[in-house]
Amino acid sequence: MSRSMPTWEPIEGDLATPLGFRAAAVAAGIKKTRDALDLAMIFSDSPATTAAGIFTTNRVAAAPVLLSRQNLIGSRGLCRAIVANSGNANACTGKEGMHAAEETARVTAELLGIEPSQVLVASTGVIGVPLKLDLILQQLPHLKEKLSRENARTVAQAIMTTDTVPKTCVVRSEAKGKAVHIAGVAKGAGMINPRMATMLSFITTDASMGERMLHNLLRGAAEDSFNRVTVDGDTSTNDTVVALASGLSETVVIPGNDSRAWFAEGLTLVCQTLARMIARDGEGASKLVTVDVIGARTPLDADRVARAIANSPLVKTALAGADPNWGRIICAAGYSGAKFDPNKIDVSVNSMVLCRKGVDAGFDEAAAHRELEQRELLLHVDLHAGKAAAHVWTCDLTRDYIDINSSYRS
Amino acid sequence: MSRSMPTWEPIEGDLATPLGFRAAAVAAGIKKTRDALDLAMIFSDSPATTAAGIFTTNRVAAAPVLLSRQNLIGSRGLCRAIVANSGNANACTGKEGMHAAEETARVTAELLGIEPSQVLVASTGVIGVPLKLDLILQQLPHLKEKLSRENARTVAQAIMTTDTVPKTCVVRSEAKGKAVHIAGVAKGAGMINPRMATMLSFITTDASMGERMLHNLLRGAAEDSFNRVTVDGDTSTNDTVVALASGLSETVVIPGNDSRAWFAEGLTLVCQTLARMIARDGEGASKLVTVDVIGARTPLDADRVARAIANSPLVKTALAGADPNWGRIICAAGYSGAKFDPNKIDVSVNSMVLCRKGVDAGFDEAAAHRELEQRELLLHVDLHAGKAAAHVWTCDLTRDYIDINSSYRS
Repeated sequence: MSRSMPTWEPIEGDLATPLGFRAAAVAAGIKKTRDALDLAMIFSDSPATTAAGIFTTNRVAAAPVLLSRQNLIGSRGLCRAIVANSGNANACTGKEGMHAAEETARVTAELLGIEPSQVLVASTGVIGVPLKLDLILQQLPHLKEKLSRENARTVAQAIMTTDTVPKTCVVRSEAKGKAVHIAGVAKGAGMINPRMATMLSFITTDASMGERMLHNLLRGAAEDSFNRVTVDGDTSTNDTVVALASGLSETVVIPGNDSRAWFAEGLTLVCQTLARMIARDGEGASKLVTVDVIGARTPLDADRVARAIANSPLVKTALAGADPNWGRIICAAGYSGAKFDPNKIDVSVNSMVLCRKGVDAGFDEAAAHRELEQRELLLHVDLHAGKAAAHVWTCDLTRDYIDINSSYRS
Repeated sequence: MSRSMPTWEPIEGDLATPLGFRAAAVAAGIKKTRDALDLAMIFSDSPATTAAGIFTTNRVAAAPVLLSRQNLIGSRGLCRAIVANSGNANACTGKEGMHAAEETARVTAELLGIEPSQVLVASTGVIGVPLKLDLILQQLPHLKEKLSRENARTVAQAIMTTDTVPKTCVVRSEAKGKAVHIAGVAKGAGMINPRMATMLSFITTDASMGERMLHNLLRGAAEDSFNRVTVDGDTSTNDTVVALASGLSETVVIPGNDSRAWFAEGLTLVCQTLARMIARDGEGASKLVTVDVIGARTPLDADRVARAIANSPLVKTALAGADPNWGRIICAAGYSGAKFDPNKIDVSVNSMVLCRKGVDAGFDEAAAHRELEQRELLLHVDLHAGKAAAHVWTCDLTRDYIDINSSYRS
């Protein structure tokens, strides 16, 4: 590996673009909408597959999260299958919920000829409603029959809930003349907060690496991507990001050489692309907003300011209305807990300066309004208190968020 | 003072119901709406008046907050006048803003024959727009002329911004045959968060006490009232709660006897009544919601759970839609940082149990929906992890909140 190593290029594809993977999805009747895809299976044919997962930090973790955590340990990171459903989170469902998750893994393992601990399960949807296990068990044999490279493209759709678009990202690179791929799908639109949210993401690669290496790389990439997205500040019960590495590209990622940094770059690119898709598709969102904080005293201060701004309902409603209300941005910075001098702060949106040294920069109101009507906004805040920086992706807060969430269950 | 001491009774009245106070309000043209009251003056005739104030914790504090803090110290708690404006927060306005606040205090002091440091100023409204000092200076002599007991009732209206109703509370008690009064007004509807918000509250009493005693009592009462209200989690730049005690009832509140507990009770009653009015009148709110957490391991844990639930946009939108989505309540408790066993938690709304031991309690969906259509809701959460409790007042999150805040400045 060297500096001349080809970079990672985005390509068309799906979870089966990396060698060794097959997948499929069916409409199992878990979602209320008839014939909507709501159950997916992803399988790696290679016995040498390694797996890693990171999960919600919510104390109230859903049954599939509890089981998948346990199976990653039980199989020593050798999981080869994922079964995911949308339409029901299987959270706050007690012993029955855990039984449903376990049975799903057990039957899937039997069908695929692997150990139950090699199966990961994931669910997303309404909390507190019993998951109908029979609907899943009925479909598992059919799902197994449908596993193919062609059917893999349906997985991104099968995990959607309030998402308006399926989210897929595939990248390709070459190492020593051999093609290597990383593919990812994600879902997530509401209950999205840094430190993981009601989001699921499944990642496949044909690179080869130990499960510990995969775990560390996944954790690093998630920190710079999924953990930097916030829609509404609610951290869900079901967040799951799982990566499977088939090893079939024969490209080995090992500690202590450049291969690690090279693969980390590709994995981070996939995760960041998916994370931005999640923010852009936030419930009711009309704008993708990047909050970029520089000049903070410490990295923690930069992070606090970025997150406070990104989570402020007042900032987010102003952005929805294209209102250059920079006072709300400074106000959020002020209650973030970070230390800075309010008389030094600069705020700009895209390339337009709204506030300089804590006071109005004398911008043109109509021009600022037009600038804020863009579909992508960069809120740039310079605290002039140090050298640390942080960024977070979010979206605006619109009436549609209220409409979507005031009757989600009905 | 004894157990047989008459309790505090709510009565009709205003800030001049306690002896020794006069007040007035005028339309100075600061608000965009023509002829809308937007400037108020409150004055205590008694030279023995003591004053106390508590202010926003936001690092970005408005000029009037900075000046009032300074004047309380400079006058050794002997402030006798308050000048408050709505329509402009005089925050993020730099040196000009501080000059405007200082000039307001200086001219008011000259008119009233007191020291500039005996004048407190408060502002609420849009952030980052220069306050037109001339509009205020023009009106101060007129305002001074209008000071009367009759005109005091207009103050509550003059401090309103997006508030839909003026907020006043007056209580009366007797000590040793002498009537004692406490009166309060408040404003606040958005940018409302525990630990103080864009709220102003002015309190008058004719009880007599030292400024240190008044400060301690005010801090205690605010902790149990204003600091337990959240509308949107945004802590503003302008929060101010000020109390003036004229001493004219000749009832003295002193440390170490029952008078302190008795007065604290009345003051807390006034502050809590105003705090609940603020929550009920939250921007776009259709419901007053009390979140009541019991069975927590520690008081901090109880507080964290109550605030996480009260600030969750997903909980608040579900309440707006009368959707008994208890899963979101548990989810918020789960990410609050508090320690508890998810399999023990109980959740009810009013007297209807929605969740028992972490799972669906088997409630009637239609009946729960009807229950949630009430205008006052009690969300009761028992963590079964200890004996600590906490409560917070909030409101639901509706489309109207978005409409109000997406174009606040225009």
